[in-house]
Amino acid sequence: MRTNGITMKSSPAFYSQGLETYQVPMTLYAENRHKVLTSLLQSTAPQTTRTRGIVLLQGGTQPTRYDTDHEPVFRQESYFHYCFGVHLPDCYGALSFDTDGDGGGTTSYETTLFVPTWDEEVATVCGEPPDLEEVRREWGVDSVRSVDGLAAWVEEEMRRRGWKEKKQEGLGNGGEDQPKLFLLRGLNSDSGNYAQPAHYEGIEMWDDARDEETLFRCLAECRVKKTPAEISLLRYTNYVSSMAHVSVMRECHPGMMEYQLESLFMHHTYYYGGCRLMSYTCICACGPNERVCIAHVSLSYSTFANRTNDEPFSTRFPITNGINLPCQIHQQNTAKILHYGHAGRPNSRLLLPNDMALLDMGAEYHCYASDITCSFPVSGSFTTDQRSIYEAVLNAQIAVIQRLKPGVGWVDMHRVAEREILRGLLACGVLVTGGEEEDVDKVIDTMLDVDLGAIFMPHGLGHFIGIDTHDVGGYLEGHPPRSSRPGLKKLRTARIMEEGMVITVEPGCYFINRLLDGAMQNEKQGRFINVERLRDFRGFGGVRLEDNVVITADGCENLTQCPRSPEEVLDVMNGGQWPPKVDVLPELKRRWAVCKDGAMEMMDVELMHKA
Amino acid sequence: MRTNGITMKSSPAFYSQGLETYQVPMTLYAENRHKVLTSLLQSTAPQTTRTRGIVLLQGGTQPTRYDTDHEPVFRQESYFHYCFGVHLPDCYGALSFDTDGDGGGTTSYETTLFVPTWDEEVATVCGEPPDLEEVRREWGVDSVRSVDGLAAWVEEEMRRRGWKEKKQEGLGNGGEDQPKLFLLRGLNSDSGNYAQPAHYEGIEMWDDARDEETLFRCLAECRVKKTPAEISLLRYTNYVSSMAHVSVMRECHPGMMEYQLESLFMHHTYYYGGCRLMSYTCICACGPNERVCIAHVSLSYSTFANRTNDEPFSTRFPITNGINLPCQIHQQNTAKILHYGHAGRPNSRLLLPNDMALLDMGAEYHCYASDITCSFPVSGSFTTDQRSIYEAVLNAQIAVIQRLKPGVGWVDMHRVAEREILRGLLACGVLVTGGEEEDVDKVIDTMLDVDLGAIFMPHGLGHFIGIDTHDVGGYLEGHPPRSSRPGLKKLRTARIMEEGMVITVEPGCYFINRLLDGAMQNEKQGRFINVERLRDFRGFGGVRLEDNVVITADGCENLTQCPRSPEEVLDVMNGGQWPPKVDVLPELKRRWAVCKDGAMEMMDVELMHKA
Repeated sequence: MRTNGITMKSSPAFYSQGLETYQVPMTLYAENRHKVLTSLLQSTAPQTTRTRGIVLLQGGTQPTRYDTDHEPVFRQESYFHYCFGVHLPDCYGALSFDTDGDGGGTTSYETTLFVPTWDEEVATVCGEPPDLEEVRREWGVDSVRSVDGLAAWVEEEMRRRGWKEKKQEGLGNGGEDQPKLFLLRGLNSDSGNYAQPAHYEGIEMWDDARDEETLFRCLAECRVKKTPAEISLLRYTNYVSSMAHVSVMRECHPGMMEYQLESLFMHHTYYYGGCRLMSYTCICACGPNERVCIAHVSLSYSTFANRTNDEPFSTRFPITNGINLPCQIHQQNTAKILHYGHAGRPNSRLLLPNDMALLDMGAEYHCYASDITCSFPVSGSFTTDQRSIYEAVLNAQIAVIQRLKPGVGWVDMHRVAEREILRGLLACGVLVTGGEEEDVDKVIDTMLDVDLGAIFMPHGLGHFIGIDTHDVGGYLEGHPPRSSRPGLKKLRTARIMEEGMVITVEPGCYFINRLLDGAMQNEKQGRFINVERLRDFRGFGGVRLEDNVVITADGCENLTQCPRSPEEVLDVMNGGQWPPKVDVLPELKRRWAVCKDGAMEMMDVELMHKA
Repeated sequence: MRTNGITMKSSPAFYSQGLETYQVPMTLYAENRHKVLTSLLQSTAPQTTRTRGIVLLQGGTQPTRYDTDHEPVFRQESYFHYCFGVHLPDCYGALSFDTDGDGGGTTSYETTLFVPTWDEEVATVCGEPPDLEEVRREWGVDSVRSVDGLAAWVEEEMRRRGWKEKKQEGLGNGGEDQPKLFLLRGLNSDSGNYAQPAHYEGIEMWDDARDEETLFRCLAECRVKKTPAEISLLRYTNYVSSMAHVSVMRECHPGMMEYQLESLFMHHTYYYGGCRLMSYTCICACGPNERVCIAHVSLSYSTFANRTNDEPFSTRFPITNGINLPCQIHQQNTAKILHYGHAGRPNSRLLLPNDMALLDMGAEYHCYASDITCSFPVSGSFTTDQRSIYEAVLNAQIAVIQRLKPGVGWVDMHRVAEREILRGLLACGVLVTGGEEEDVDKVIDTMLDVDLGAIFMPHGLGHFIGIDTHDVGGYLEGHPPRSSRPGLKKLRTARIMEEGMVITVEPGCYFINRLLDGAMQNEKQGRFINVERLRDFRGFGGVRLEDNVVITADGCENLTQCPRSPEEVLDVMNGGQWPPKVDVLPELKRRWAVCKDGAMEMMDVELMHKA
């Protein structure tokens, strides 16, 4: 294999926000680049004996708000971050390579980072321009240049790699032996937007060398399976967010406002964990909030959730010309929903004694996300009904985590969760067997056949997580397509699990009047509903439990370290220790770890389980 | 005057984040609309005897990040917020009016809000669409409609107001008596971007009725002079942010990281004040941070600060076609600076015992800003040199606040501040008289003549503040143009003060190597510098004090309630009470107030001053 000869380059550099926060080694990104290039060479191998050229990515730009000079905190574009780990705006990054570069079938490549620089006049008021050698060491790349020299560098590098001008009309330039300019372009299956290819003034001269097909496929797929370094970083964000959830549980009491819980969470993760940004807007949904607590992104629910895989995106989401706006913040002209935590409902409810709190909050660190949901009774004790629903959801979570391993299909896992939730609803009398045979599992089979699960869990079981909360790769080519069935069509992936995937497991149970009313009027579903008993649950709100789980060689490991059993929840709410002395729920596969000296240190799980 | 007959409509509605947070009456926005319409009628009065038509504004849209479905917290577009106070995305708002509408030279007008709605299918997963009558009551407008009906409504309304189709070619349609569609378009003099006119599919049919000249001029000018309701709201944001600054001072100690101060501030303002967003990214600049602590917006300093008023913006900032992107988050292709608090320098320094902390932080509430800077020694006690510089800056602040009143020019105030800072530098020996006569004020005159003030305070004295931190109207037509002199050219306005203006007073003194070295090599400036003594201040960092001040009929009032005297600062750092029992600095005109039952309640200043 031609990639055998790629030499990984290492660097002592790391990113840390300071104090006891995690130290992200820049080798994480070197390894990512290595993976991408390896994948790209494998991908082109069947067609050509020699691949060479430049992989060029453009980083995010610093936006300003409307017509003003207000600058929101910059967040790097995710593909760029994956390859370079550089949190500065307005950069470009390149991998230039040649499979024959140093002979013998090996591949040599160089990583070049392009950063903004400025002149003396600007420096007078704005500070010295960056020292490029210092920047190079900081980010662990081969060389750093001013972004002003990008166009010239690409030309020089393409020629050095063997680019020859078109000799005559009609001959064409896309020959096997010409170097290529690999650019990113591809569909995000959660938003319907397209990743936009890098752009700079003058890039048109390489139109014959452009390849927009290969890179996205390789890069998106690389992001799906995490390296150990990425998993360790995700373990940190889960650690920080888990401890912040515990802190919020301890502070929470009736008479507070939902937004105060959001504030506590953000403060804890930033102050103690160095996490400046949330992975997504906090959802603090307490009380009878119904539908609004099920989505932390509105668009996907309002549009994608209802599309099938057969519908081409292009007809519904016209792509605007990306020229000169390759990394802008996109906007969609689709219906907007006032979902929880967002503008329309800014976590602004007063907490009442009988409320269930559903808190979906996760912080990110150096652009790696966490996405965790805890549910608990605001008062510090469960009513019988609250406990029934909570346990149904917890059983769903355990059932999925117990089964997760390579080779298992995500759609099947969604069904496993629905099954446990329906079982719980049967147990507490909201559902009845409807005159069916008494074998509960057979009754549930019938319920699933008539899509009753989607009435109570109208969202997907979970999604990939990584640099994006809804991470890429859910519906890449060559993998199972999106289902068109209720519930299943909401899944952000239908893939078969593979080692290294990190995915959220987030079963939930909600009592949504509109859905319940529909089900009651639907003969096939309605016969299973005990209308009388259901009344007790109108206005109940919802319960969701969400962990972030990594698929291992023979099972899975839970990165989230939150209280999950009803006793654990009540215990920490009343001041109990966390993490606990004894892990009473080893079935959840929580892997206990703390951050020490900038690295994640595992705790002795065996000892905990035995103690 | 034709506007006599406009009837203000009142409404009991208000916005509050809950608990003890401020209750913003929706009449604030009704009053703003009234002001805008009055101004618009006055503005058109000389040319026409009858003005009628529609003022149409488009609100901000919910952005997503790059190609993903990540949605940052929505923040309303400022002009739209000024007129409607509605914090929902994807809205339009209209004032339709006719000066002859109900006869007798009076003006009748109606306010219509257009909000997104959705159908049953979407409602199933996303919640019920809004009840329009409920929305109408909530926001205190005359009517609320679905945004889907906007185009039809405009057409109907224009016809109802007397629009007549063009009868024949060449006749033209822009006659005196035709109704007009007033749209917003105008330059933001801080960013160089343009406010974009409202856009919807089909608006082209009103090309003959479009007026893009009048509205911006009126609306921007209305925003410059605040109503009592706006001032009260700004008093609240100042109150919350002042108390948060005090809380940070109390927590601050060596060994912390700068970002922890940012986290404390944001938590305090959100948890206690309901302020979800900061007015701008917090600058926590501790220690020898030099230049980077002087700007909270990079672009303005890197580009605008160095332009003169003669240079047309259009040549430097090509405006892209606004069609279909009227309210997008704009981006500029100018050099980007890694300024403090932002991506390049994310408040990530460890606090050392001898550091001066310069904290520039302010929260916003319902889109109204605060912008406050405190400086203090991290250790809790001043060195002699720190105290000298601190007092020079404080003297500058007092001198300006003592002089501020209607009729005073802002450029003169900037000079007043520079004068006091130079006086302080003379007193502590960094500057010398340079062999000049011994009358200190005459020496300072000479120093100002050679622009020495701009070496130590290389930014403007302050800026308007309101819905934007750098509020609009600084360089509107008909007011003094931007100066081209060092220091003065950084001013965001050169206007003459008027009652109701709210402006920041933020003198500062910094020791910036590049500027000092330049001054030492400049014969005219260098002769005033004591090179030996200056060495003590290399790496000193900076001191800035920033208050938000409202111009009153005969002076000004300080909305900011921060500790300012060195004793006050040290006292609160050591746990002392705040607000204090006695106001030891009545010269600063701090107006003591607290938020009670959702309103600002004044404390008895007389009593405090006497106690």
